[in-house]
Amino acid sequence: MVAATQAATQAVKSSLKPNIGVYTDPQHNLYIAEATPSVEEIQKGDTLEPGEVVIQVRSTGICGSDVHFWHAGCIGPMIVEDKHILGHESAGEIIAAHPSVKHLKPGDRVAVEPNIPCHSCEPCLTGRYNGCEHVLFLSTPPVPGLLRRYVNHPAKWCHKLPETMSYEDGALLEPLSVALAAIDRAQVKLGDSVLICGAGPIGLITLLCARAAGAEPIVITDIDQGRLDFAKTLVADSPGVLQTYLVTRGKTEEELAEGVKQALGVEPDVALECTGVESSIGAAIHAVRFGGTVFVVGVGKNEMKFPFMRLSTREVDLKFQYRYCNTWPRAIRLVNSGVLANIRKLVTHRFSIEDAVEAFKTSADMKSGAIKVQIVNKD
Amino acid sequence: MVAATQAATQAVKSSLKPNIGVYTDPQHNLYIAEATPSVEEIQKGDTLEPGEVVIQVRSTGICGSDVHFWHAGCIGPMIVEDKHILGHESAGEIIAAHPSVKHLKPGDRVAVEPNIPCHSCEPCLTGRYNGCEHVLFLSTPPVPGLLRRYVNHPAKWCHKLPETMSYEDGALLEPLSVALAAIDRAQVKLGDSVLICGAGPIGLITLLCARAAGAEPIVITDIDQGRLDFAKTLVADSPGVLQTYLVTRGKTEEELAEGVKQALGVEPDVALECTGVESSIGAAIHAVRFGGTVFVVGVGKNEMKFPFMRLSTREVDLKFQYRYCNTWPRAIRLVNSGVLANIRKLVTHRFSIEDAVEAFKTSADMKSGAIKVQIVNKD
Amino acid sequence: MVAATQAATQAVKSSLKPNIGVYTDPQHNLYIAEATPSVEEIQKGDTLEPGEVVIQVRSTGICGSDVHFWHAGCIGPMIVEDKHILGHESAGEIIAAHPSVKHLKPGDRVAVEPNIPCHSCEPCLTGRYNGCEHVLFLSTPPVPGLLRRYVNHPAKWCHKLPETMSYEDGALLEPLSVALAAIDRAQVKLGDSVLICGAGPIGLITLLCARAAGAEPIVITDIDQGRLDFAKTLVADSPGVLQTYLVTRGKTEEELAEGVKQALGVEPDVALECTGVESSIGAAIHAVRFGGTVFVVGVGKNEMKFPFMRLSTREVDLKFQYRYCNTWPRAIRLVNSGVLANIRKLVTHRFSIEDAVEAFKTSADMKSGAIKVQIVNKD
Amino acid sequence: MVAATQAATQAVKSSLKPNIGVYTDPQHNLYIAEATPSVEEIQKGDTLEPGEVVIQVRSTGICGSDVHFWHAGCIGPMIVEDKHILGHESAGEIIAAHPSVKHLKPGDRVAVEPNIPCHSCEPCLTGRYNGCEHVLFLSTPPVPGLLRRYVNHPAKWCHKLPETMSYEDGALLEPLSVALAAIDRAQVKLGDSVLICGAGPIGLITLLCARAAGAEPIVITDIDQGRLDFAKTLVADSPGVLQTYLVTRGKTEEELAEGVKQALGVEPDVALECTGVESSIGAAIHAVRFGGTVFVVGVGKNEMKFPFMRLSTREVDLKFQYRYCNTWPRAIRLVNSGVLANIRKLVTHRFSIEDAVEAFKTSADMKSGAIKVQIVNKD
Repeated sequence: MVAATQAATQAVKSSLKPNIGVYTDPQHNLYIAEATPSVEEIQKGDTLEPGEVVIQVRSTGICGSDVHFWHAGCIGPMIVEDKHILGHESAGEIIAAHPSVKHLKPGDRVAVEPNIPCHSCEPCLTGRYNGCEHVLFLSTPPVPGLLRRYVNHPAKWCHKLPETMSYEDGALLEPLSVALAAIDRAQVKLGDSVLICGAGPIGLITLLCARAAGAEPIVITDIDQGRLDFAKTLVADSPGVLQTYLVTRGKTEEELAEGVKQALGVEPDVALECTGVESSIGAAIHAVRFGGTVFVVGVGKNEMKFPFMRLSTREVDLKFQYRYCNTWPRAIRLVNSGVLANIRKLVTHRFSIEDAVEAFKTSADMKSGAIKVQIVNKD
Repeated sequence: MVAATQAATQAVKSSLKPNIGVYTDPQHNLYIAEATPSVEEIQKGDTLEPGEVVIQVRSTGICGSDVHFWHAGCIGPMIVEDKHILGHESAGEIIAAHPSVKHLKPGDRVAVEPNIPCHSCEPCLTGRYNGCEHVLFLSTPPVPGLLRRYVNHPAKWCHKLPETMSYEDGALLEPLSVALAAIDRAQVKLGDSVLICGAGPIGLITLLCARAAGAEPIVITDIDQGRLDFAKTLVADSPGVLQTYLVTRGKTEEELAEGVKQALGVEPDVALECTGVESSIGAAIHAVRFGGTVFVVGVGKNEMKFPFMRLSTREVDLKFQYRYCNTWPRAIRLVNSGVLANIRKLVTHRFSIEDAVEAFKTSADMKSGAIKVQIVNKD
Repeated sequence: MVAATQAATQAVKSSLKPNIGVYTDPQHNLYIAEATPSVEEIQKGDTLEPGEVVIQVRSTGICGSDVHFWHAGCIGPMIVEDKHILGHESAGEIIAAHPSVKHLKPGDRVAVEPNIPCHSCEPCLTGRYNGCEHVLFLSTPPVPGLLRRYVNHPAKWCHKLPETMSYEDGALLEPLSVALAAIDRAQVKLGDSVLICGAGPIGLITLLCARAAGAEPIVITDIDQGRLDFAKTLVADSPGVLQTYLVTRGKTEEELAEGVKQALGVEPDVALECTGVESSIGAAIHAVRFGGTVFVVGVGKNEMKFPFMRLSTREVDLKFQYRYCNTWPRAIRLVNSGVLANIRKLVTHRFSIEDAVEAFKTSADMKSGAIKVQIVNKD
Repeated sequence: MVAATQAATQAVKSSLKPNIGVYTDPQHNLYIAEATPSVEEIQKGDTLEPGEVVIQVRSTGICGSDVHFWHAGCIGPMIVEDKHILGHESAGEIIAAHPSVKHLKPGDRVAVEPNIPCHSCEPCLTGRYNGCEHVLFLSTPPVPGLLRRYVNHPAKWCHKLPETMSYEDGALLEPLSVALAAIDRAQVKLGDSVLICGAGPIGLITLLCARAAGAEPIVITDIDQGRLDFAKTLVADSPGVLQTYLVTRGKTEEELAEGVKQALGVEPDVALECTGVESSIGAAIHAVRFGGTVFVVGVGKNEMKFPFMRLSTREVDLKFQYRYCNTWPRAIRLVNSGVLANIRKLVTHRFSIEDAVEAFKTSADMKSGAIKVQIVNKD
């Protein structure tokens, strides 16, 4: 085992800008400030642990959870208690590597899997490292996120991008991973009838994945007709597959369920719930067939009321997705081969890291028309 | 196909008492009155459809749902709207058979599976006939139940008892079927740590099944210490396996979960929830490990509040059992071989059918010490 | 229950040609002769059992097994011991219905599911009716097949076609069902790397299904370059997904496995074996990843030699498909919606039933270029 | 991260005997010779890597594979190419620990899981580390085994024993792990009918596990009546569950299958094949029900002939177990709680490490009556 203090042998780019990061804090400020590692540390290489690389972050998507940490200061038990760097949807370029790293070198283009699990607890050893009891998840307090110019990260959690994929593509792999994990664990199969609740970024990516997995028919719901229209464009190559259902206020869960079933023509085998809204989950429970699955991808309130007797007398399985594991290699193949090429249409806005505050405001503004906002480091 | 009106060729017992049944009605009465088929119909054989037999019911257990129909008049969407015969946990003797019936004959002793599914809908064709869209389930309104002296039933849903099993054993196969279905679908495996919530009849049978399936360690909870003590006696041959946890009022779901985990020494892999009580389900959700399962066997309120973010961030699967399918052959083998021999200890009270009202009162009285009350036809 | 002898109330077409069927026999003859039901029987309606309809068969595909029964006289334990009508891939028009039939009427266009299971044995009750212990499978001796002008069949096993699907489409649903069952039970998922062995009709339909289920990358093998080229055209809309591998004589199973892995870029998660050839199955076993699945769709020799230690040290699951169950509704949706529209390209030759012998010769002739030959009744 | 050369801070026992190991070599010799680490190295602590401990091995079982490496020089692709220490079924006492080790300290009693996986390859990350592409498995050439007085091993792969378990118990956890992994992956459930082929050590432990998992009925086969009688004694507390079937030479696979089914009374749901003998696997394939599983635990010839058409027309799943993963914590609980207490009856012979050659001869001698031979270090 090589001592941690040994210098990186690979040459580091000579001209680096000062490292900065995008911070929030318990007072709901959002601002840009100095970040680690410093350019001096990178040049000297002495903060690099065995197995680590330095990444020049190139593209980072803003996630709803980033906005939520800024606005609400917490998600469930995860609380912003100090100044805190956001961002966990990133791709970038390797600019330095610890000598112990064999499969990556400076110049390599990678997507970042923003977790560092322990490999010792039961979830890790049984292949569900998203449940790791000691995980460091970048951008979940107090672990700083990826919205920086430069970041140290284990090479093991950097996935090399093919030449035919851009950094922008690479930064989409993180939200794609959530949807892939959901589709996998919800066991969506060829010919399954599927309900997707919500046409936000996760709902839309889930739609692409469900379509790619052969779900037929599919209905997607939302309270915004514009989003439903956009959903249609994402699967325009197979117009017979997708129906849309506009959710209107004041309807009961049973009425929503009925509307969904009529749009679909059959009861859904699986509902992929991407809103985290109580009434939407309730409607999904009422809609699925006997023995069907309601699979919740989104987060929501700490407590929710569900139609218990419907769950019980219909043997509805209620399942949940928390982050993801083992999705990146698969995600890269699916985007690169063209199977999920249309995910690229989700990036509607791009900002430089210096304009990160503007980027966050755009992402948070329902009227901006933004679906996925990315923050870019050109140099 | 043989015409329905053809007379049964098998001789029917010469001396039959008048047929009576145990009824409830929308006014919450409970009483005994005349029932079909009449002795005359049985003797003539002309009410017997192809494939049917006449059963002289010998033992019938009283289920919590029978008491609930009497007291509350409904269970969820199933409502007592007319006078209605109760009872669905029965075993008896074949006393006549339609000539088309090949595998049963008068004198055969059988346990009754109290459902008649359609064999045409999707749940039937995919092996989940408990979800049959057109099922007739005996004792669920408006289908009359088995608490009668004589009943016509399809031979297909009568399971022959080995000579070494009594009618009393046979009548236990229905509640056992619920527990077996739950253990199967909850995928309880050798060495799984299991929480069982509730030490009523279903909880206790579930305990026997979990123990027989190799669950280790097991903890069972209840609000009554006497029931917990009784649970201990059921698995006295393997004293190291079972812990008990007395639920006391005023504790939070998190505190209950903590108590359960301490009794168990580990987080449960699976919780088998047999109370249908909101706070008990909530405690189970807080107790299970990341990726664990909370499997609800009981019924309860139409709506319930659950700790959503706990479900989500722990990827807890929430599943439900509705009746059962394909359990009888397995249930007979398990009781007959001795694997589940201790299920016999659950029958604490026996009444003749003429004393059915007393039997129901005993079953409904928490202070009676009754676990499973059976109603017997001796002749 | 309605007596079997009651006449059908629906009007039968006035002009029907004499019923004929396509027969083989133990002497390997292939010929056309009279078949039941006769036109007179159809007109009188007295051979129609409750639940049955009379179908005017419109399109029937020739399956490899039909040719095999003709040429070899048997498939495993199923032996042609008398004159025997072939054919089990059919769609047609309802021309009469027993009065007990509610969901179909004369004029309805249907695809025929060519099996009549018992609904009483364990495989039936557990949702795997393809394993029914008493199944009547049309065209498996001694049950006559569908290559007739008119056939009586249970309405339950007739699946109504949407107006947008032709009889030709309907007759493709049977081979499609085999592939759908295989894809389902092999658990092919979005992003799985898949090897398909063999580019005959079943291999090609399996390719369409694997592609539709999101498999990526896919490699298909064959000993004929023309078939591989045809395979490419079937998935031309997603050129990045499919690789082909030409199998050449004299290579070891290990060498074939190596070639497949190089074409694929990764080890296959799943191999879908559609040749039934020993060396091809062996190569698939060598190719798949640790914990992968080799799923055999084809039939073959009674005994085969497999690389046991490779199976063992790699934990390769070896699984098999026998016919199908519960696939028709799904198959209809997938073809009709366009997800599997390209299956239509497989029909290369069409013959009238009077030219059935010519049709079989074309189907059996490797040089004919035929993929799927269909026999058509225009009137 | 702490440098590897830092001395262990914990005191090492002052009096250690010279380290010796039990070796075989390509010339099929079996002998005792010096082994590493030396006592001096242990005392100085400078061969201990971060995360490692020194174990004083106390009990080690002899596995059939140890004997096979000695006699045959290889198992499949694993070949003895140099002098080589055997043994992988061990428990012992921690006598030194690297300062980085937190959960173990000198004096702790542990069972050794004899593998060191990489935590980076796909099998590792997906929870199947037995398929690790870079695993070091102790006693598989060229990785030296555990039949030594002292061994360095990662603390992570040492499982602490409760005070109520002996070193002898601890050394049984390795073969138990094989059986637990098989029972788990074969999905043996409460009430499954099970065939166990072979009553050697793995067959007998598998019997204990199948019984503990609620399999009923069970039949075990062997060519030796004495072993079948011994099997009976292992499950004497539930005499109704187990049948035995004596395999006699000259019977066909079909005849053996018939005999097994008659002994069982039903077709087995699952066959657990523990002989690795071609005809036994073939008989199991013929015996299981439609859709059943033949699960092969043993190793055997490189190639084997199987009844292909039976596999195909019965949809028999053929699966295999290679080593194990994530079994130790569960194995400890099951032995310690008494659920698998009878596993202790399998240890029939004990030898000191100085008499290891005699121990191996006893283990290899079919006439010795030995089931499990253990080698003991008393001091």
